[in-house]
Amino acid sequence: MARLLLLSLLLIASAHAFHFHSSLCKTGASRMSSFRARQQRAESSSLMLATSRRSHTMTMMAAGSKPKKIVVLGGDGFCGWPTSLYLSEKGHDVIIVDNLSRRNIDNELGCSSLTPIESPETRVKAWEKVSGRTMRFVNLDVARDYQELVQLFLAEKPDAVVHFAEQRAAPYSQKGAKQKRYTVDNNVSGTNNLLVAVVESGLDIHVVHLGTMGVYGYGTSGGEIPEGYIDVILPGGRPSSILHPAYPGSVYHTTKCLDALLFQFYNKNDGIRVTDLHQGIVWGTNTPQTIKDERLINRFDYDGDYGTVLNRFIMQGALGVPLTVYGTGGQTRGFIHITDTARCIEIAVSNPPQAGEKVQIFNQIAETLRVGDLAKLVAEKTGVDINYLKNPRLESAENELEVANRKFRGLGLDPILLDSNLGLVDEVKTIAAKYADRCVREKILPASFWNRRREAECEANTLEGGK
Amino acid sequence: MARLLLLSLLLIASAHAFHFHSSLCKTGASRMSSFRARQQRAESSSLMLATSRRSHTMTMMAAGSKPKKIVVLGGDGFCGWPTSLYLSEKGHDVIIVDNLSRRNIDNELGCSSLTPIESPETRVKAWEKVSGRTMRFVNLDVARDYQELVQLFLAEKPDAVVHFAEQRAAPYSQKGAKQKRYTVDNNVSGTNNLLVAVVESGLDIHVVHLGTMGVYGYGTSGGEIPEGYIDVILPGGRPSSILHPAYPGSVYHTTKCLDALLFQFYNKNDGIRVTDLHQGIVWGTNTPQTIKDERLINRFDYDGDYGTVLNRFIMQGALGVPLTVYGTGGQTRGFIHITDTARCIEIAVSNPPQAGEKVQIFNQIAETLRVGDLAKLVAEKTGVDINYLKNPRLESAENELEVANRKFRGLGLDPILLDSNLGLVDEVKTIAAKYADRCVREKILPASFWNRRREAECEANTLEGGK
Repeated sequence: MARLLLLSLLLIASAHAFHFHSSLCKTGASRMSSFRARQQRAESSSLMLATSRRSHTMTMMAAGSKPKKIVVLGGDGFCGWPTSLYLSEKGHDVIIVDNLSRRNIDNELGCSSLTPIESPETRVKAWEKVSGRTMRFVNLDVARDYQELVQLFLAEKPDAVVHFAEQRAAPYSQKGAKQKRYTVDNNVSGTNNLLVAVVESGLDIHVVHLGTMGVYGYGTSGGEIPEGYIDVILPGGRPSSILHPAYPGSVYHTTKCLDALLFQFYNKNDGIRVTDLHQGIVWGTNTPQTIKDERLINRFDYDGDYGTVLNRFIMQGALGVPLTVYGTGGQTRGFIHITDTARCIEIAVSNPPQAGEKVQIFNQIAETLRVGDLAKLVAEKTGVDINYLKNPRLESAENELEVANRKFRGLGLDPILLDSNLGLVDEVKTIAAKYADRCVREKILPASFWNRRREAECEANTLEGGK
Repeated sequence: MARLLLLSLLLIASAHAFHFHSSLCKTGASRMSSFRARQQRAESSSLMLATSRRSHTMTMMAAGSKPKKIVVLGGDGFCGWPTSLYLSEKGHDVIIVDNLSRRNIDNELGCSSLTPIESPETRVKAWEKVSGRTMRFVNLDVARDYQELVQLFLAEKPDAVVHFAEQRAAPYSQKGAKQKRYTVDNNVSGTNNLLVAVVESGLDIHVVHLGTMGVYGYGTSGGEIPEGYIDVILPGGRPSSILHPAYPGSVYHTTKCLDALLFQFYNKNDGIRVTDLHQGIVWGTNTPQTIKDERLINRFDYDGDYGTVLNRFIMQGALGVPLTVYGTGGQTRGFIHITDTARCIEIAVSNPPQAGEKVQIFNQIAETLRVGDLAKLVAEKTGVDINYLKNPRLESAENELEVANRKFRGLGLDPILLDSNLGLVDEVKTIAAKYADRCVREKILPASFWNRRREAECEANTLEGGK
């Protein structure tokens, strides 16, 4: 109750003092049907100016909450690293846990981050030099090194654990038997180990987990996707609030649905406090923290397996090759900037559910957009063509997607939007073009196929187009 | 279509020729509200006579279906072994795959089957001698030996795989960190390996999986539990048929919910044909096949971890010690006799879903009953007292449970019921009393607790009662 009151006061104070962006008052997702119109009224200020204004607001938002000790599992990854830096900058005591599996998968695929990322040790030292803040790094495999995880919890007594330690690429998870098995074994055992370790430690550790919008099945319930739970009428007219039906589209997405059931069980049985964040597709590379020193640069994946769609387009724009749109590009997806990922995690950590409360679920997206419209936007900004490839995925050619994101907005998030002219051009110039010589061009094409029929259909796909 | 027609004809023919039991025409679960009345009109014929009559009907039911090659994963276990024998007797070519993990857990817990079970090799040889039918045994760990599993599929090209290869005791799954982790790692990786192996083999293998009524959460949806899917009205009045919301009550039950999502995904993405059987609590030990030779005897677990509730009561009845009822005994559960488990599996194997059909889900139960009423029944038959213990489980003290089982009944199952006087007394005499000297009495008490509070509350529990 006290927490709610404090939060409300902060919200009111913030709204008055910092002239909250009008979008804060909007509810639900920003639909992109009037895409061109919105593009025209896009802001002209730069990414950095905007994020600086916003982080001022966010700093005030978090002013009431005490610094916490936070273990970030998977803190070396694309989302984990900038999040760790952001949490550290906010004054939290951050311990990064990672087994460097993503770097090992780079080796396996023969394709590493476009940006030259430093070792965790160098990264952490550079951060200390730049910020004066200490972060620790522990090399540990959450899915295997259970005893070490328990010992870490008992020794450090963290307030929260942020759980990014999962294989996170849908295409990689569909590549073959080895990758399907690795994704399930790693993700499910990792999540279960974390929950069992929290129970065994006897500590009241708040678990913050990065899930995905993909658990909802991209619009299968036919209306606005609520945040985690959906109100249904059961046979006989009985009303019930249930976990939104899971309808995942890849082995990777399936593991996030399995996570959701594990959270539900351990929350019910052991009272573990859990916040599950269902995130959209992340775009952007750097955050106000990672750009402070080149040794802090975030990873940038552009390949067919790990490059999320907009980053892949950005890379192709910089190289001057056609953008690879799968199918008609009619798939509607949720998007969020990497800077907002980090901010959402901090908001989640600062606002744990009450003791005894059920799993708290937030939709972590800024807006929704059709992939084809995204390609048109990038093509326009970079002057490249669009190459419509056969879709390696098994999915609906077109889908509507309307997503509630009231909770984060209610807690003060004013997200960076795609049509704000922030970031996109900057990404092309400062990341994709700058490191273009490190690109392995043949890795851009899809290399994983949802099933054999899809693989056969995709044989004629080429990077340069000309179907 | 042809399959449906054939099935209908068989049903009609069977009903006329063999005077189907009237309960075949009933739909839904047999509720036990008029328990005493039904007990009085219980049949007096013996288990063997009844099962022989029924298996005659069932043989005719299956007459239209050709013998199949069937791999039974976990074929050395409590349900797997009698099922393997039954399938073999029906003329199917059976390959048992097992890593003997259940026997290893016996070693871990210091408590083995009350019945002296022989090695798989001896069992298989004895069956060959008794029946003239060959069954093969392969020692293989489904959760680990993935390549061997694929090779087995490619070499044998089975029509169906029956998947029992999961850790199946809820109390064991809650015992501690080691057992929670083992249950998740073994069950989820095993199921995923199986599905990936079927995809990799390229064969059209029908997967038949033993799930549990526990996936439904024992009555949380408030009405009759349908078979797997439930019709709901979504916000905005949109109707939808969804997987019944999962609300598992233990780590073990949770893994079965995770299985359901894996089945849904691989069915959708790869067209794998799956039948998922949500089974009630199994009672009874032997079947018409296992009693043919003492070397074929089925395992009998009576301990607090693995002894399903009625088997535990039977053992306590035979020993003359009070029956251990947890809490008020108001928990309503679904029950099925082990003989019917085997028959249901055979019906499922003989009736695969069509190509392209979604996962087929059957509720594999005969009836529902309150645990307290079950105790009264056994107490009456054996003259022992009832000892109400503090409940080691975290669950509702009382619940209603109404379960649809129309599908198996529609396919010809006429199940053995608890109040039919069949089996119960026979079990006490021929199993529990006969091998009572092998019982480790202190193993009967619950030894696993759902959480720390439950463990503390259960400290005063004793086998002999006297709260």
